[in-house]
Amino acid sequence: MRENRIRTIWDRGAWALNGWCTIPSGFSAELMAGLGWDSVTVDMQHGVIDYRDAVAMFQAISTTDAVPMARVPWNDPAHVMKTLDAGAYGIICPMINTRAEAEKFAGAMRYAPVGYRSSGPIRASLYGGPDYMDKANDILLALAMIETAEAMANLDTIAATPGIDALYVGPSDLSISLGGKPGLDQTADKVVAAINAIVAAAKRHGKRVGIQCGSTAYAKKAIKDGFDLVTVLSDSRIIASLGAQTVKEMRAG
Amino acid sequence: MRENRIRTIWDRGAWALNGWCTIPSGFSAELMAGLGWDSVTVDMQHGVIDYRDAVAMFQAISTTDAVPMARVPWNDPAHVMKTLDAGAYGIICPMINTRAEAEKFAGAMRYAPVGYRSSGPIRASLYGGPDYMDKANDILLALAMIETAEAMANLDTIAATPGIDALYVGPSDLSISLGGKPGLDQTADKVVAAINAIVAAAKRHGKRVGIQCGSTAYAKKAIKDGFDLVTVLSDSRIIASLGAQTVKEMRAG
Amino acid sequence: MRENRIRTIWDRGAWALNGWCTIPSGFSAELMAGLGWDSVTVDMQHGVIDYRDAVAMFQAISTTDAVPMARVPWNDPAHVMKTLDAGAYGIICPMINTRAEAEKFAGAMRYAPVGYRSSGPIRASLYGGPDYMDKANDILLALAMIETAEAMANLDTIAATPGIDALYVGPSDLSISLGGKPGLDQTADKVVAAINAIVAAAKRHGKRVGIQCGSTAYAKKAIKDGFDLVTVLSDSRIIASLGAQTVKEMRAG
Amino acid sequence: MRENRIRTIWDRGAWALNGWCTIPSGFSAELMAGLGWDSVTVDMQHGVIDYRDAVAMFQAISTTDAVPMARVPWNDPAHVMKTLDAGAYGIICPMINTRAEAEKFAGAMRYAPVGYRSSGPIRASLYGGPDYMDKANDILLALAMIETAEAMANLDTIAATPGIDALYVGPSDLSISLGGKPGLDQTADKVVAAINAIVAAAKRHGKRVGIQCGSTAYAKKAIKDGFDLVTVLSDSRIIASLGAQTVKEMRAG
Amino acid sequence: MRENRIRTIWDRGAWALNGWCTIPSGFSAELMAGLGWDSVTVDMQHGVIDYRDAVAMFQAISTTDAVPMARVPWNDPAHVMKTLDAGAYGIICPMINTRAEAEKFAGAMRYAPVGYRSSGPIRASLYGGPDYMDKANDILLALAMIETAEAMANLDTIAATPGIDALYVGPSDLSISLGGKPGLDQTADKVVAAINAIVAAAKRHGKRVGIQCGSTAYAKKAIKDGFDLVTVLSDSRIIASLGAQTVKEMRAG
Amino acid sequence: MRENRIRTIWDRGAWALNGWCTIPSGFSAELMAGLGWDSVTVDMQHGVIDYRDAVAMFQAISTTDAVPMARVPWNDPAHVMKTLDAGAYGIICPMINTRAEAEKFAGAMRYAPVGYRSSGPIRASLYGGPDYMDKANDILLALAMIETAEAMANLDTIAATPGIDALYVGPSDLSISLGGKPGLDQTADKVVAAINAIVAAAKRHGKRVGIQCGSTAYAKKAIKDGFDLVTVLSDSRIIASLGAQTVKEMRAG
Repeated sequence: MRENRIRTIWDRGAWALNGWCTIPSGFSAELMAGLGWDSVTVDMQHGVIDYRDAVAMFQAISTTDAVPMARVPWNDPAHVMKTLDAGAYGIICPMINTRAEAEKFAGAMRYAPVGYRSSGPIRASLYGGPDYMDKANDILLALAMIETAEAMANLDTIAATPGIDALYVGPSDLSISLGGKPGLDQTADKVVAAINAIVAAAKRHGKRVGIQCGSTAYAKKAIKDGFDLVTVLSDSRIIASLGAQTVKEMRAG
Repeated sequence: MRENRIRTIWDRGAWALNGWCTIPSGFSAELMAGLGWDSVTVDMQHGVIDYRDAVAMFQAISTTDAVPMARVPWNDPAHVMKTLDAGAYGIICPMINTRAEAEKFAGAMRYAPVGYRSSGPIRASLYGGPDYMDKANDILLALAMIETAEAMANLDTIAATPGIDALYVGPSDLSISLGGKPGLDQTADKVVAAINAIVAAAKRHGKRVGIQCGSTAYAKKAIKDGFDLVTVLSDSRIIASLGAQTVKEMRAG
Repeated sequence: MRENRIRTIWDRGAWALNGWCTIPSGFSAELMAGLGWDSVTVDMQHGVIDYRDAVAMFQAISTTDAVPMARVPWNDPAHVMKTLDAGAYGIICPMINTRAEAEKFAGAMRYAPVGYRSSGPIRASLYGGPDYMDKANDILLALAMIETAEAMANLDTIAATPGIDALYVGPSDLSISLGGKPGLDQTADKVVAAINAIVAAAKRHGKRVGIQCGSTAYAKKAIKDGFDLVTVLSDSRIIASLGAQTVKEMRAG
Repeated sequence: MRENRIRTIWDRGAWALNGWCTIPSGFSAELMAGLGWDSVTVDMQHGVIDYRDAVAMFQAISTTDAVPMARVPWNDPAHVMKTLDAGAYGIICPMINTRAEAEKFAGAMRYAPVGYRSSGPIRASLYGGPDYMDKANDILLALAMIETAEAMANLDTIAATPGIDALYVGPSDLSISLGGKPGLDQTADKVVAAINAIVAAAKRHGKRVGIQCGSTAYAKKAIKDGFDLVTVLSDSRIIASLGAQTVKEMRAG
Repeated sequence: MRENRIRTIWDRGAWALNGWCTIPSGFSAELMAGLGWDSVTVDMQHGVIDYRDAVAMFQAISTTDAVPMARVPWNDPAHVMKTLDAGAYGIICPMINTRAEAEKFAGAMRYAPVGYRSSGPIRASLYGGPDYMDKANDILLALAMIETAEAMANLDTIAATPGIDALYVGPSDLSISLGGKPGLDQTADKVVAAINAIVAAAKRHGKRVGIQCGSTAYAKKAIKDGFDLVTVLSDSRIIASLGAQTVKEMRAG
Repeated sequence: MRENRIRTIWDRGAWALNGWCTIPSGFSAELMAGLGWDSVTVDMQHGVIDYRDAVAMFQAISTTDAVPMARVPWNDPAHVMKTLDAGAYGIICPMINTRAEAEKFAGAMRYAPVGYRSSGPIRASLYGGPDYMDKANDILLALAMIETAEAMANLDTIAATPGIDALYVGPSDLSISLGGKPGLDQTADKVVAAINAIVAAAKRHGKRVGIQCGSTAYAKKAIKDGFDLVTVLSDSRIIASLGAQTVKEMRAG
């Protein structure tokens, strides 16, 4: 089975750089995937992307070395399993707030007897190889989003859940759940403290930890703070940012 | 944030006229949306419409003044949240039968601390404006469908649920659940009594109330009976009706 | 090979009733096709429909007895042949203005040695049957649109073209080309005279003749005037008409 | 309402041959459906197929005599109901492990008062006919997949569930759940014993039983062993098999 | 009919800023269109965009004030007319090399008696308004690309063609046709001289002139040199540029 | 720029094995492409495939080592150029009957000053590499289909056309044009003689020659007869063949 380069990077003690796709297009996904990210995540939750788009995007990413990952819309085995069957090598699952939710997610990621994933890796075995069913349980990555006060209260039991490979910080939801403002690159004390606690919990339980960032400066700091994977910007944020700047420069005369 | 014209209409004491789309096409949605309805609802439950179609249809509706709304397939936070992120300003949720189901639905509609909607209004903020996250909780509409005997038994607790803005009568399911015949524009005593009870419950709890109608005559009567929003016909019912009539006229020689 | 019911109807001396689809959706096409039209035409010229939509629509129409037809975007063999391969049993080709254009169109409709259609009826043989290649030249219908002053000047040579089965009046373009106003159901003398001349030319050369109508009254008169096929309204005109009327009735309320 | 030919076949004591589609294309579905299978199942679970594809595929299958069926991604009423509304005449539901799950599935298949299916058979009534709502409860088929050790433990209560018309063996998941290897055409004693037990339970409770097979030899034996419906190969397995063989023959010089 | 804001801008003596879309997605088009460009062009030639995508993108652009334009794949009336019917308010046509090609293009843009555009503005009249057919000839914009040595040889006769509203410089093709290197923002003497000649020819014949640019600096200089419309970057160039820079900054860390 | 493995194979004196895709699906294309063909051709002429499908299929093929090729619908520069921009490394063009048609096709394949291809290899450069524009003229392949009596009469002038890399036999059209029966694997003397003449003409002018085959036996003989590329079967022929055989075996009891 094809290796999971994110695991390989982590195994050699390095951090991984994750790209983020929200535009429902195989073309933009292929363009993104060729830019040098270690992995590229198809956002099926807040991106305007459904399953059909995601399949095309996984194929597009598979033309490059970037590891195809996805954020599913919700902690639902139908989403997790169909996305894995389509060839995702890692799943970021939103709103994991309790141990039971973590177990539900982890179980959907792996075949029996470890989990309850249904067998039928129709495109996944084209991408992964003919021994996919034998090795997938050890190769795929389950990343649980920690983004609510309730999850913070259950942080250790979630982090300890077998089959959860990494915690993933959703800063915007985490902040509003803690009474703060939405947005990436949080600097409010309360949110920063929570983020630090998530990193610590991951380390304590031998798990990896990732975070969604809005700038390279924040992402670099996150790496220094112990994060193993950082997502920086996204296709649509890039367009909004450089597109707006271009218009502004032109209008400035 | 862009206003929700349905709220505006209601605030001035008037009723709203809702159009209904079941054909999975941005073109037919734009055509419908330009005909003068106050809002247009994309039926993701019984329409042959999936998420990708719905996004295109919301964009099409957004070229007009009609308020984009959707009926989701089921009371599932994944459906509700992805549909809101795509720009729907109101959600009609089928089969709300208990207080717990009403709370689950209402919670998915709003950000913390009021609810548990996940932040990421990717197209919604293009439509609503940059202050979307600050104001969405007050602008979007949650309409709970009352369409079973079980829901009738729980009518007051459902109507009283914070965050439920309106009840919405599904006459066909309501009738068969009460032992009657399917169909819109119900006139059977048992069903009419239930509909009246729904209107009364809504009024009692300060909520709005809407209904699906099959004719302008029935819809006009509904408005007199106190309904705040009426849906009349749908794109496919219109085609079936006037198309069949056209063929009949031609065959009549 | 499956019969072409339009030919069968004509062979028994009757007129055919044609439905018209402009919405790019297999669902609305299936809905239309079930209403009782003898044929249903997918408008790939002025409908918002591309090839992919058209294939799905031909499949939808093929679930009924209606004969699947198409109007192609232009007199281009690529359009004609791909549309036939997808299973259309008749092609309406716009803007046939000269004998050479008529021959180009007719040649694209039929296999050698009669014409120059390339062999490969990939879906057409699923619909038509395994003997499709043997019989298609005799079964499919080529309808040439007469809709310009130039075409009127060449009416007889066009009508006489072998392989052109019918002339088809495009009243709106015909009118503006003659200096009149756009629109269906033309009553201006100049346009009516031209339409009568087209009917006469068709009869003179043993060809059939069809016309696009905007009302049953006009279509019924056309039949009396000798037309063999009438198209009445379309999916989108139906929605615009009855949809607008519905809104108007409600607002009148 | 159009008959369900699978029921008709069963009623006359015969077995049914089911084709299987995993490629998201109306064209390949129509091609498959014309080959002579009694039914054709659109695999929305492990096929790379979403709802929009499935609708087009049901339309394609509806151009033939094959009965349109679907495997849904998961035991979720949203999946079951939307798929029925699109015209599926039978639903294969994965991972039915308990009586409660069987009841949830069976209830989603039928209208009140038998079940809780919501009324709105938008395409289903085009396919089934105008009396669809009256008769659908008796015509549609619910097939519950038995494919885990947990399901084996609950075999009798599942088989006895009213509204479950048939059990359907998922051999690959069943095997791994029992500690065996994945794959179709299982011959390991433990798995064979479980399969035999499933057949026996179905018979005991007056239900039908089907199975997924990888070869005609295995399928023929299954019929002898009492199976009422066998699925053999699939569109993608056929391509993989004969495609690879073709390449091999060519490379063999 | 809705005004063409590009004409309005030009009428008041100002220049227009054009955005450029190559990603086949209504979402990215809506995102781009909201950034403040005066017009947004859907590139159906070198973008990975077909007609169906383009329709969705025109709808998306129509939710904003930006004028929807398109570059068609080739000087083919089928492309020009279908794109106008879908609601484009301006067409950039590649490879106009002779007076005859210019006339063919200009004729496809306008209804008889001025041109030979076929009537049927199915979505265009939704966008433009009910008087579309009366006014479209005066409102829509035809921009002819000058990008070959042959076109340079015919510059005056092309520029003088009635119905050609503007010349549009394709710097990359122009350069390779003149024996230079491909690329935007050309500075080679031979190419600069040709570009200056195009500007001069446009002015001489009372036409507008536009150009494709790769940077704001070059675009600003172009405006000073007399250009009336400048295109700067594109959605995909923006992703490639800021995406690569982001990865580079992270790796530099 | 990424090599064209078909050229590499030919340069070492070997023959190439080409797979053929007619199903409009990236999934089936990826499945096919992984089976070991040297190249895989997306049939945009007789396949039910439009541009949007083709792009997804090129991406799918690009996940493997197979060379992505396409057959365009017609000898139209818009088709050729858009398909090359999407990443095809070879184009099979139907119905090349004259020297002028051969030159039109060859010119559309290459940038100035050799040809008149417009620059903008938007996905092609993602697949081919950043030096695509410099090297594409030497790497891409132009295959001209010889399939009519007219082409046979012009065989030498077509074969001698600079930029035509190979002739490609379309046996079915060739046969019917010569007065024979349609179908692959022609054995009629007249057709065999024509095929031999095509091979001889290709050799005489230093060009390669390919052919469409329906069986491995015929393809093997073709290789012995001097063919440099053979296409054997297609995705849909494989399904029709093994699918029908499977049903037959099952019905045989």
